[in-house]
Amino acid sequence: MITLTTDFGEDSPYVAAMKGIIVGIHPQARILDLSHQIPPQNIRHAAFFLKNAIPYFPAGVIHVVVVDPGVGSERALLYVEVAGHRLLAPDNGCWTLLIPSSGRPQQVRRLTESGYWRAPVSATFHGRDILAPVAGWLSRGIRPDCLGPVVEDWINLQLPSPELGSRQIHGEVVFVDHFGNLITNIPGSAVAALAGSRVRITVGNAAIAGVAPTYAARPAGTLVAVISSEGMLEVAVVQGSAAGHLQGGLGMAVSVVPDG
Amino acid sequence: MITLTTDFGEDSPYVAAMKGIIVGIHPQARILDLSHQIPPQNIRHAAFFLKNAIPYFPAGVIHVVVVDPGVGSERALLYVEVAGHRLLAPDNGCWTLLIPSSGRPQQVRRLTESGYWRAPVSATFHGRDILAPVAGWLSRGIRPDCLGPVVEDWINLQLPSPELGSRQIHGEVVFVDHFGNLITNIPGSAVAALAGSRVRITVGNAAIAGVAPTYAARPAGTLVAVISSEGMLEVAVVQGSAAGHLQGGLGMAVSVVPDG
Amino acid sequence: MITLTTDFGEDSPYVAAMKGIIVGIHPQARILDLSHQIPPQNIRHAAFFLKNAIPYFPAGVIHVVVVDPGVGSERALLYVEVAGHRLLAPDNGCWTLLIPSSGRPQQVRRLTESGYWRAPVSATFHGRDILAPVAGWLSRGIRPDCLGPVVEDWINLQLPSPELGSRQIHGEVVFVDHFGNLITNIPGSAVAALAGSRVRITVGNAAIAGVAPTYAARPAGTLVAVISSEGMLEVAVVQGSAAGHLQGGLGMAVSVVPDG
Repeated sequence: MITLTTDFGEDSPYVAAMKGIIVGIHPQARILDLSHQIPPQNIRHAAFFLKNAIPYFPAGVIHVVVVDPGVGSERALLYVEVAGHRLLAPDNGCWTLLIPSSGRPQQVRRLTESGYWRAPVSATFHGRDILAPVAGWLSRGIRPDCLGPVVEDWINLQLPSPELGSRQIHGEVVFVDHFGNLITNIPGSAVAALAGSRVRITVGNAAIAGVAPTYAARPAGTLVAVISSEGMLEVAVVQGSAAGHLQGGLGMAVSVVPDG
Repeated sequence: MITLTTDFGEDSPYVAAMKGIIVGIHPQARILDLSHQIPPQNIRHAAFFLKNAIPYFPAGVIHVVVVDPGVGSERALLYVEVAGHRLLAPDNGCWTLLIPSSGRPQQVRRLTESGYWRAPVSATFHGRDILAPVAGWLSRGIRPDCLGPVVEDWINLQLPSPELGSRQIHGEVVFVDHFGNLITNIPGSAVAALAGSRVRITVGNAAIAGVAPTYAARPAGTLVAVISSEGMLEVAVVQGSAAGHLQGGLGMAVSVVPDG
Repeated sequence: MITLTTDFGEDSPYVAAMKGIIVGIHPQARILDLSHQIPPQNIRHAAFFLKNAIPYFPAGVIHVVVVDPGVGSERALLYVEVAGHRLLAPDNGCWTLLIPSSGRPQQVRRLTESGYWRAPVSATFHGRDILAPVAGWLSRGIRPDCLGPVVEDWINLQLPSPELGSRQIHGEVVFVDHFGNLITNIPGSAVAALAGSRVRITVGNAAIAGVAPTYAARPAGTLVAVISSEGMLEVAVVQGSAAGHLQGGLGMAVSVVPDG
């Protein structure tokens, strides 16, 4: 099984070309679309996406990621085994949020063995010419050590860290989802440790009293704070868009203090 | 085989997480995307979508629906057998247009058996934590009566009914499709019974003479009435968007009278 | 294996209905989405898409194409074998860019055998009522000569040809991709033959000096010319949108002259 995550959209023929290449090499390969709607060249969006999607898959699945502003340059393409998952991705940090906080990837290889690539390789579409055929061959069972040498260096992406004080927490919005929910980098556990749910949350010019147990616990249109499905503090508008309501998004400051 | 219908879009990791959960429980499961572009929290849109999609599938397929503004609240999650089809969906009416007009579902169960769920269950993403794992287990063959008790009450959604008079018909637009075609709640058979195709149709401030046999029977740009692929009166602009042309959409009044 | 390319979007139930029909006829059929985001009724976009996607697939796959402004009219629906690929598509030229420049399709048949169709056939959705069931039956192994008679005439679509002079080249933009890259009808080989990469490219009011080896060879935001993954001259903005930057798109004039 091979999954695809790209910023290609679906109006262009790029995803289709990759699927054709994979199926040509391995007719029995099962292909699963994860997303083709990563915003163009947005490595950070891709990284957050993968961090919140890949861990739900069983081991053994091959995850191909093509968000690749450096295509054609000297940036490496990598085969990665991290936290039990296998990825093929450009060396731009998009996969590195999957590295456990006190751990390291099991294996990182630079793809150099061009015998597993399409020939000739274009300067603008390595997803089709390198990553798709390598995924096809991997799914047929070739060993990763055939793909290229182990490397010890790669580009790491880091999300901004929150400041977790004993009397207040400062963080920021690190993802805006499809609903316009604002996901922060503040762990729900840190909020609970500060003052249970009796907190006052400031986001931009707005203030929210308390953490709601669910969206549906407040009337439609209300600005609320909840704990996201990944355990992070999230700012939402019930049945609406917090991003639209607050005219805000990535990087917006969020702070939490005990209430009263 | 498991199908997915959600309002999650594809820029967020939610669909991918659900696919990972399903594949983890049942690696051989075949997953088919029906839509991830249901407008956010739009139960009525989801209901119309399902009514016009699910009947084309053979029996036995498991259809997972996640359009769920009530997530985390006391609203039930259901296993439903209706008109020979199997669905997993929130109890918000999204599936009830599939109930035959003179019939009832074969079986409705409330999902209560948390042994088939992810643990812990988040407050904001029951698609991943309950519906996806239950779909995985169902596709592996567990019996529905393992999932929870039969229930006799659920939320019913009803589309507005047209007024079918002997000299005129009043109805409204109940769906706007991707092309901007306006699908009404007026059966084509009722139009035919009124006056064949010699009718005058009023929609907003516009009037249309007659029902065209096909889009292509009129020049590009023409406002036309046709019979939709589901047999309903539809207002369209040939190779254009009636929704844009008329600045109208859901709920717009449509009336039909004999012409001349 | 059956692929689907449509202009249906995913907010409407049309793609889902087609999948249901296929699976009902052939439960083991593997369905691969190529695109449902072809712009509505845009045959030329579909044609470029198919030309740059289908050749990457192995022979034997059945490609269903539903971009069909003539639905319900007398336009034919076709079974086509071209360049080793099999398509089911309306006779509107969408597939004809796949015909080799000095060749012809192996086989073109008009679908007439209604025994392989849904009954009754609607006037507005032949994708569901004719193409999907025929694809299902084909994937089960029925022979193409069961579908209808060979035809020798069909609508051909032609992209505008560039003027390739010995001192200058005139062409135009023939596709705008998801990133806003402008793909022209000027072969990279013609540019190279004119003056290597020492050329001056004029597109709208803007001029570009030279062909860059990759996007990443220039700073973000730069307007560049590169050779596309299909070997054509392409105008792009590094990590941006040339379509947005130049306020241009399909049909925009592009010329190339030697530089200095």
